[in-house]
Amino acid sequence: MRATYDALMAYTKRTVALSQVAGLLGWDQETMMPPGAAGQRGEWRGAMEEIIHARQSAPEVGAWLARLEGADLGDEASANLRHIRRTFQRATRVPADLAAELARVTSVSQGIWARARAADDFAAFAPTLKQVLDLKREEAAALSDGDGTDAYDALLQDYEPGMSGARLQALLGELRAGLVDLRDRIRGSTRQIPALSRSFDHAGQMALAHDLAGVFGYDWSRGRLDLAVHPFSSGSGFDTRITTRVDEKNPFNCFYSTIHETGHACYEQGISAAYLMTPLGRGVSMGVHESQSRIYENQLGRSAPFCGWLFQRMQTEFGDFGVPDADAFYALVNQVGQGYIRTEADEVQYNLHVLLRFDLERALISGALEVSDLEDAWNARFLADFGFAVDRPSNGVLQDVHWSVGLFGYFPTYSLGNVYAGGLYQALCAAVPTLEADLARGETAAATEWLRDNVQKYGGLFEPADLIERATGAPISARPLLDYLERKFTAIYRL
Amino acid sequence: MRATYDALMAYTKRTVALSQVAGLLGWDQETMMPPGAAGQRGEWRGAMEEIIHARQSAPEVGAWLARLEGADLGDEASANLRHIRRTFQRATRVPADLAAELARVTSVSQGIWARARAADDFAAFAPTLKQVLDLKREEAAALSDGDGTDAYDALLQDYEPGMSGARLQALLGELRAGLVDLRDRIRGSTRQIPALSRSFDHAGQMALAHDLAGVFGYDWSRGRLDLAVHPFSSGSGFDTRITTRVDEKNPFNCFYSTIHETGHACYEQGISAAYLMTPLGRGVSMGVHESQSRIYENQLGRSAPFCGWLFQRMQTEFGDFGVPDADAFYALVNQVGQGYIRTEADEVQYNLHVLLRFDLERALISGALEVSDLEDAWNARFLADFGFAVDRPSNGVLQDVHWSVGLFGYFPTYSLGNVYAGGLYQALCAAVPTLEADLARGETAAATEWLRDNVQKYGGLFEPADLIERATGAPISARPLLDYLERKFTAIYRL
Repeated sequence: MRATYDALMAYTKRTVALSQVAGLLGWDQETMMPPGAAGQRGEWRGAMEEIIHARQSAPEVGAWLARLEGADLGDEASANLRHIRRTFQRATRVPADLAAELARVTSVSQGIWARARAADDFAAFAPTLKQVLDLKREEAAALSDGDGTDAYDALLQDYEPGMSGARLQALLGELRAGLVDLRDRIRGSTRQIPALSRSFDHAGQMALAHDLAGVFGYDWSRGRLDLAVHPFSSGSGFDTRITTRVDEKNPFNCFYSTIHETGHACYEQGISAAYLMTPLGRGVSMGVHESQSRIYENQLGRSAPFCGWLFQRMQTEFGDFGVPDADAFYALVNQVGQGYIRTEADEVQYNLHVLLRFDLERALISGALEVSDLEDAWNARFLADFGFAVDRPSNGVLQDVHWSVGLFGYFPTYSLGNVYAGGLYQALCAAVPTLEADLARGETAAATEWLRDNVQKYGGLFEPADLIERATGAPISARPLLDYLERKFTAIYRL
Repeated sequence: MRATYDALMAYTKRTVALSQVAGLLGWDQETMMPPGAAGQRGEWRGAMEEIIHARQSAPEVGAWLARLEGADLGDEASANLRHIRRTFQRATRVPADLAAELARVTSVSQGIWARARAADDFAAFAPTLKQVLDLKREEAAALSDGDGTDAYDALLQDYEPGMSGARLQALLGELRAGLVDLRDRIRGSTRQIPALSRSFDHAGQMALAHDLAGVFGYDWSRGRLDLAVHPFSSGSGFDTRITTRVDEKNPFNCFYSTIHETGHACYEQGISAAYLMTPLGRGVSMGVHESQSRIYENQLGRSAPFCGWLFQRMQTEFGDFGVPDADAFYALVNQVGQGYIRTEADEVQYNLHVLLRFDLERALISGALEVSDLEDAWNARFLADFGFAVDRPSNGVLQDVHWSVGLFGYFPTYSLGNVYAGGLYQALCAAVPTLEADLARGETAAATEWLRDNVQKYGGLFEPADLIERATGAPISARPLLDYLERKFTAIYRL
């Protein structure tokens, strides 16, 4: 048994290495690649995908897995086998012609979506979306392999293994009423918040971004910071790179993107080194990943004490910038606005954006909602939840790239990450009584160490929900997040 | 036949794409990779090499090649088959255990060499060099597969297909006496050449480096310029990246490294687009590659008219820098010094450095010279050719990395490139009568177009020596290079 397992692991480690190489191609494409290389890069990525898929679905992997069925080689081996088996099933259940058709359609659909968004014309995108949706429903059927799994749940496994649409509905549904109510009370507040009116130079923003990544424990010997149009982090623990962007009018964009991506990167860097070249060596799910980026960005980075430190630090870097004091700065950083765009939303309204998408995409996958009715459904739901009407498709149903490239089941992991972060933050406050004082000094070591020891280091050892429940000592619930938001924004807006 | 060929080419294009991916890993390692990723990068490169080697030596490739033996599918197909067959033979003839042992030994030998060089202790490196040399001799025997090929010639094919040690000896041997004589006359010259005494800021050097790459026709939409400890160019025509370095005391280091790497890159960028994802889509040999980098750097970039332009451009960028006029600037850029180090050598002495290594490494491979006698042999030859004695091993036998990583047969391609460049320059002057006037305006379009049309665009279509003879219309000879050097340095040193 052990020899079989070792053979499977040696083979798998090579596959993991090749997947990491493919990851670097993605990073390079977004940060370094000259524009003329786009076509060649497509060939490269296709060649790497072909090889990785062939290895993941190789008959010898199936034979090894069959021989290891029921073997008890300890927790780590069980977890590795769980991941390898899941990947093998995914790679073998989807027929090659369906996978090829999905790859073909999604390689052009993003461009069609982008043009439709630029033209503010949902009808120009609808036929393509219908095509993608039908293929994803076919894929879901192939993935469940006739075992009766709900189609949406089958797709969800790519992003949040072990989670179901029904459980998400129960977890996230709790948020909606509370957030709408809180947002309405905030709208009634008379609190005046200053605005930024000057510009903040590129070099100063990047210097501060470097500092912020360091403050949150980013290990520069295993990473680097570059610019990208849409900030992201990528890579595994030995080499986890982050990106940010600079808007001279809005430095918070740069700073909080940096902290957010630092959270993702620290998760990867925090995984036990022994796991890093194995299936356990990655963040275990999108939801847990987002819990780390969000707790760094929001619960820590947008806290009152840390905002006090950042206010000082910005004054040192940029001089007086028209915000009178730390309290006003804290309110500015956490301002609840009135906008259409998910990626620009504040902590209170962000999850309302996600819930809208989650409900609509579940209905699309189940067939309860047709693509032809999607724009109307979006607009009606937006009006109900946000209290004002969508003015044009690029501010509504066309704003996100996800569906155009077949990402159904991805959206809810954003909110799930926030829910996880809410629970983790409650546990963290109990475990690190000096947290507020630390943050006021721009010090996060105790907090990030707690996250490393209770979440990050385990990599893929536990299933996502189990991992969070072990760390928080409580069943997963949206309650801690709601309580945190209620407390925080009641104070900021003096409700 | 055509269907078989198409199947082989479809397979080969994927292999080419994977080799290009491996190339990007090398670029990233030298420019972007954080230090903590070194071990992981080794795993990545090992995994890519394993896959590429498996594809190059795949039984189906052998079967396709056997079926296509003697087929006449046109010149391009013949050339593709020649490259694929050569690669297949190389990949199948070296036994797996020898390849693994070579990989194992050369993965540590570079570090041993670096420590020996730092300690100026050849004896600390000699046993490792002996080990590498023995493995390379074994490899040479495997490569010739009992067909009687000379061991050195077998190794040479990796760098200069179709070339032999004997032909190199005839071509390069002609240089030695002429260069020693010219150098001796230069040493007797009383010409006073000014020295640089101020520093040149980093940003200004990089701005000028960008300009220089553009002046020599580098296509920025298919490349980028970064910093590296040892400048290099890498990639293929769709994405050919260059690097340079900045020494604030010596801006010529940055400028001429940039022009040199631009020459390499323009070769790749100049290859017919239709060839780029095939075996024809690369520079055909190290010698031809070096001919392009050298003709850009020396015959064009260090010419009197171009130096006149560069002198003005540097004054604009840096203000007065203590060199009185363009003539003094031209002499400074081409100064013949007295140094130990090949990579810092001037045009007159560079090939003497290479000839020394070529003769010694041929003797090592043939067994005429033992590693234990190498240091003495190096020092004796250096004294004879350069007129002064090596002071320490790091300035002598330990100065180059090549042998430590098994590069035997690589050195002579540097001089072969200079010989090719000499012939090409003669032909270029005849074809572009406006060359001097163009260069005086910082204009190279006619010259680089001639090189593209006569050398670069063909990629791997012709064998290297055939390619150069077609372009120059004459048999390869060192004479044009010697005549050019004689003319140029006689004028500069007023001999």
